[in-house]
Amino acid sequence: MGNKVVVVFSGGMDSYTVLHKAAREGFEVLPLTFNYGQKHNKEIEYAEHACIALGVVPKVVDITAINQLIAGSSLTSDIEMPEGHYADDNMKSTVVPNRNMILLSLAVGYAVSSDAHKVFYGAHSGDHEIYPDCRPEYIASFQKMANLATKSAIEGKSIKIHTPLISLSKSEIICIGERSGIDYSLTVSCYQANKDGLACGKCDSCRLRREGFKSSNIKDPTQYVISI
Amino acid sequence: MGNKVVVVFSGGMDSYTVLHKAAREGFEVLPLTFNYGQKHNKEIEYAEHACIALGVVPKVVDITAINQLIAGSSLTSDIEMPEGHYADDNMKSTVVPNRNMILLSLAVGYAVSSDAHKVFYGAHSGDHEIYPDCRPEYIASFQKMANLATKSAIEGKSIKIHTPLISLSKSEIICIGERSGIDYSLTVSCYQANKDGLACGKCDSCRLRREGFKSSNIKDPTQYVISI
Repeated sequence: MGNKVVVVFSGGMDSYTVLHKAAREGFEVLPLTFNYGQKHNKEIEYAEHACIALGVVPKVVDITAINQLIAGSSLTSDIEMPEGHYADDNMKSTVVPNRNMILLSLAVGYAVSSDAHKVFYGAHSGDHEIYPDCRPEYIASFQKMANLATKSAIEGKSIKIHTPLISLSKSEIICIGERSGIDYSLTVSCYQANKDGLACGKCDSCRLRREGFKSSNIKDPTQYVISI
Repeated sequence: MGNKVVVVFSGGMDSYTVLHKAAREGFEVLPLTFNYGQKHNKEIEYAEHACIALGVVPKVVDITAINQLIAGSSLTSDIEMPEGHYADDNMKSTVVPNRNMILLSLAVGYAVSSDAHKVFYGAHSGDHEIYPDCRPEYIASFQKMANLATKSAIEGKSIKIHTPLISLSKSEIICIGERSGIDYSLTVSCYQANKDGLACGKCDSCRLRREGFKSSNIKDPTQYVISI
């Protein structure tokens, strides 16, 4: 079996933790970043820099054409970005319908084509409540489906979906990451970072990141527009 | 429940049979055609004309960017198109890795966004041998995964993957289609139709189409470059 793995890498701290882990474990890492027209385009710049810092070659694929199909999320359209907590009502607009199924399908296709045997994917327990397609039962079901998708998968050479953070909270991820020497200033979480890469400090993604650092008692290296 | 359905429509005869059926059954049909850089670009032109003939609005989405990820198929790259039978060895190059998982994921996302409740998909029994992702067990597994993918799916409003041709052979499809008044001259099967839309008559897709008409004892309306 080869040593190559695909890592779905958004430029955020969770998937960066996974990318770092894959590289540290000695895999030949193929990072995969999607430009799906997200407003927080800084994410892609951060992703490219973080890959280079880690000595892996960034790969960004522009799939903005799919917004002709799956419009309506505040992450990609003109809908105003909600602020505050991930309460169901106001955060529903951050859900890009079926996004993870599409991204994982593409990642599996990439793995098959590049002779990689795993797809690393940074879903974590904090995502479970609002995003069903980040839950362990979803990943298990996706895996079963992927095991039937290709001839080589049926013959036992399926692409394994690996989700090392699936049971961890944000603060646990930060704890583990810090101990592995991860520099989280290389990552961005904000849904609407400004042109200098400064985080808004107000969106729910910023809030979760801040709370994660706070409860893990680790200094937050993020630069925010507002003073926290 | 609304009346809208998405139909994955390649421009070929199988998916046209499905499109025609969905329209005849009174659904509000949203056809969905993918340009994934297939050499047989005539397929897309045929798809558009066939939609218009059926009174539905064609929708073509350009996803050629994904070829940066899943290269290596003779359908999309410079690899020479094999001729003759779908024997494993020479036809392997017509397999776009993980194509159907990607296309179905996009179709489900489109259905969620457009408030459609079904995705019609023209996989048929003739596909089963070489394409595992056209088999009933694959579709069933995909359905289970899709049932866990979104909040509304978990609440029982999942998108149903409907495969009315899954147990039928090419000649059975042609029989049924002809009885419903389908004009198969509006469709193209050839992997390398020329600029005038004439089929090569030599590729395996042409062979299967010809054999289908022959064994159903129905006149083949296809215009071939070579005389048959």
